[in-house]
Amino acid sequence: MTVTTTPLRVTVWGENRHEKLEEHVAKIYPEGMHTTIAQGIEENLGGAVALRTATLDDPEHGLTDEVLAATDVLTWWGHAAHGEVSDEVVARVHRHVLSGMGLVVLHSGHWSKIFVKLMGTSCTLRWRSERDRELVWTVDPTHPIAEGVPHPLIIDQQEMYGEFFDIPTPDELVFVSSFSGGEVFRSGCTFRRGHGKIFYFSPGDQDFPVYHHKDVRKVIANGVRWARADRLDRRMPELLRYETGEFSKGGAYQGPLR
Amino acid sequence: MTVTTTPLRVTVWGENRHEKLEEHVAKIYPEGMHTTIAQGIEENLGGAVALRTATLDDPEHGLTDEVLAATDVLTWWGHAAHGEVSDEVVARVHRHVLSGMGLVVLHSGHWSKIFVKLMGTSCTLRWRSERDRELVWTVDPTHPIAEGVPHPLIIDQQEMYGEFFDIPTPDELVFVSSFSGGEVFRSGCTFRRGHGKIFYFSPGDQDFPVYHHKDVRKVIANGVRWARADRLDRRMPELLRYETGEFSKGGAYQGPLR
Amino acid sequence: MTVTTTPLRVTVWGENRHEKLEEHVAKIYPEGMHTTIAQGIEENLGGAVALRTATLDDPEHGLTDEVLAATDVLTWWGHAAHGEVSDEVVARVHRHVLSGMGLVVLHSGHWSKIFVKLMGTSCTLRWRSERDRELVWTVDPTHPIAEGVPHPLIIDQQEMYGEFFDIPTPDELVFVSSFSGGEVFRSGCTFRRGHGKIFYFSPGDQDFPVYHHKDVRKVIANGVRWARADRLDRRMPELLRYETGEFSKGGAYQGPLR
Amino acid sequence: MTVTTTPLRVTVWGENRHEKLEEHVAKIYPEGMHTTIAQGIEENLGGAVALRTATLDDPEHGLTDEVLAATDVLTWWGHAAHGEVSDEVVARVHRHVLSGMGLVVLHSGHWSKIFVKLMGTSCTLRWRSERDRELVWTVDPTHPIAEGVPHPLIIDQQEMYGEFFDIPTPDELVFVSSFSGGEVFRSGCTFRRGHGKIFYFSPGDQDFPVYHHKDVRKVIANGVRWARADRLDRRMPELLRYETGEFSKGGAYQGPLR
Repeated sequence: MTVTTTPLRVTVWGENRHEKLEEHVAKIYPEGMHTTIAQGIEENLGGAVALRTATLDDPEHGLTDEVLAATDVLTWWGHAAHGEVSDEVVARVHRHVLSGMGLVVLHSGHWSKIFVKLMGTSCTLRWRSERDRELVWTVDPTHPIAEGVPHPLIIDQQEMYGEFFDIPTPDELVFVSSFSGGEVFRSGCTFRRGHGKIFYFSPGDQDFPVYHHKDVRKVIANGVRWARADRLDRRMPELLRYETGEFSKGGAYQGPLR
Repeated sequence: MTVTTTPLRVTVWGENRHEKLEEHVAKIYPEGMHTTIAQGIEENLGGAVALRTATLDDPEHGLTDEVLAATDVLTWWGHAAHGEVSDEVVARVHRHVLSGMGLVVLHSGHWSKIFVKLMGTSCTLRWRSERDRELVWTVDPTHPIAEGVPHPLIIDQQEMYGEFFDIPTPDELVFVSSFSGGEVFRSGCTFRRGHGKIFYFSPGDQDFPVYHHKDVRKVIANGVRWARADRLDRRMPELLRYETGEFSKGGAYQGPLR
Repeated sequence: MTVTTTPLRVTVWGENRHEKLEEHVAKIYPEGMHTTIAQGIEENLGGAVALRTATLDDPEHGLTDEVLAATDVLTWWGHAAHGEVSDEVVARVHRHVLSGMGLVVLHSGHWSKIFVKLMGTSCTLRWRSERDRELVWTVDPTHPIAEGVPHPLIIDQQEMYGEFFDIPTPDELVFVSSFSGGEVFRSGCTFRRGHGKIFYFSPGDQDFPVYHHKDVRKVIANGVRWARADRLDRRMPELLRYETGEFSKGGAYQGPLR
Repeated sequence: MTVTTTPLRVTVWGENRHEKLEEHVAKIYPEGMHTTIAQGIEENLGGAVALRTATLDDPEHGLTDEVLAATDVLTWWGHAAHGEVSDEVVARVHRHVLSGMGLVVLHSGHWSKIFVKLMGTSCTLRWRSERDRELVWTVDPTHPIAEGVPHPLIIDQQEMYGEFFDIPTPDELVFVSSFSGGEVFRSGCTFRRGHGKIFYFSPGDQDFPVYHHKDVRKVIANGVRWARADRLDRRMPELLRYETGEFSKGGAYQGPLR
């Protein structure tokens, strides 16, 4: 049978600094990491998705209220310039996530202002960039994000991320990675915040062609599709007062003192 | 057999504004809510605990780095003046929690800057202050915080807090409350953040003598005892680089660009 | 845009004893509870679903290996005759769930052999059948099972189920109910077992017309749709030996002694 | 200050077959694995613990109702003869766990009847016995079981256990292991079942001297101490009927039909 659904609107956000500053990165990602990531999503979701990209140096980092209101899922990759993302834009993205916009955070995005704000922890970890082989293992085979993903997913050369990864306990742990050096990392984690769904996926350093990897692109596409909210309205959770017996209509907060 | 343990050092923080501004609150809590809460902890933990109190209007809100370094568990009640807590003190408390200081957040503290920062969500809820009867039910009888707590714990008059409570999924759900009006609320929740343990317990409005309630005092004492870290050293999670094969000694972060 | 998907094949299993033994139940459910439940699913999922029903008194309780292999999601309602379900059929259903068949367990099904086997606990609770009003509140608004469900869902007359509900901590807690008497209950819970997904939903006693309730039918339909596995192959988790460096092909277990 | 506590009564159960059938195992564990494990617990908990051991070939496998009633925490190691444990004893142990007895399951005990019964899944995994080096990493540094455990805990020679480990999602994930071959495993997991607490810890094959390892012994001792229930009474969860307004005294179940 056939089902009609509206296109999944995805905004792929990339810092786009390494590509301009480091030649070896520009060679791997000539159109920018964000473009490569967007292509991976399109490859997997086809006509079901409507893509746009945005970068740090765009006005308002390309993330105006208008853009966010028209975004079902935002993906985020940043590394060298987390501090340059304006607090105002971060607050805006945060509001949209709590209101129902999905968020997929990639690799060094673990230290982005928006991810740290949503987690409430330091989001630190151990690391090493020495071409470890990473094996991404599925620990929840029933999860939609694991669909069609090999067990293990093999990445020949990657930056090592190791525990203790200072995040809150994930709502769902989908993937755990090992590295040739012996470290492990909770590499695929989901979180709910307000009405929004968040997926963090660690593989993907600027020094390696990870976002060209067929299976990594599959995971990101799965994550983007999963992160879309079911509800059509974009609405922040609100503090409302309800009379006894009244369950539907709440009244706005008048303040703490009588 | 006997075991020797060092005293559990607790700092009970209270806003202490309602007690000064509203006569009916001053009647219920003549020495301030914070003093009543501290007495409840002492009643239950006796000589095992070393208590101090601190309030909003103390210099640095009574929460200097020195005080926090000497605090195993901080309890927090605030309501009318969350905005007056300085961001600098909030950041300091946040660092200490991530480093291993326990935190017990009470009632309207759900909207305190520190709790909101640790949660990453709006922490809103539904509410009504009309003398509902609250029944606090235990949904995890194996949890140390539930030890010696009646099932249900009955509070004759309370402010109603109702779902949807916009917090991240608790690591552990210990209590769920019902109110005479029919609302429910996840009233006893634990969270881990960094090296710190957090317990949120909702009963306790300034308009009602809830902190004099024998069983509520028992829960708070249990929560305080549970929230104490096992580790003796107070240490923030750190982002460190580890050479291949080196698992103990990490090196400090040199920055994102080569 | 349009998407083609294969029909969701659902088997609705009902004990069908109360309907035959108790007149007041036959009046509420003249075609049997299982038929009413199936109609509710069809109403909500339409042509996307292919339904069949099966009852206790059918040969092999209507759950042959053939039927189960052709079932994406099985729903279960039982009460008076849990003990009459054959252990062989229970083992067969268990294998199918671990292999990827979804399971939706309703109301008194909490004490069915299959649910108890999957949970590993006693699955007991407190109860009372005195026409309490039940309010089903959503505590995870991002969950697909909560989609289109009113907050709260109101059931005028219901059997009370109360905590402590002896189940393992749910993987996801979607709904929490309150009853006029003051009790609370974790009424909407999901679990993963092997490759299968399980949804337990408590409303629905034989003495009340709950399965005719528009919103209850909506929840059950959402649950059925959610419980369907993504993987197409029905496959039990297996204990396999893998040579060093071989990640795809495992060898069968040869026994514990050399 | 000093605190008086009653001794923690631990029963260490071992199959004790490999030690009798395989010479290389007898060399590593001349007094039996169970004795070695018990010594490790005593080393770490000292006079705070009262230990006994029991083996498969004892009458009733050494697990009479009397022994279990006097056991706060039972540890379990089995491998070659899971099938020889009588169903009657398994049911008895299961009742005691649901009533509050702690359980620590080690290594191949993942396939013991009692663990499989409590989990409800197949409990299968991938494996290889080729002297992999295992690194046990702590992913929850706030957990009491992680106290005093090195990060990582290094075991030079071990049997590899790899994902997908078919268990329910652990209530708490404390440790994750990597193996030289690249596999990962959720090696330290806690579960609640009824009033009982369960800790599963995977390191420890009969072919390697793992239970002589100082840090492995530390983890087991931590696990045993954690698994002890707070409640003094041993009591199964029960299905009881409560009149409206009566919260303390429930009545026994009279059966499903009026």
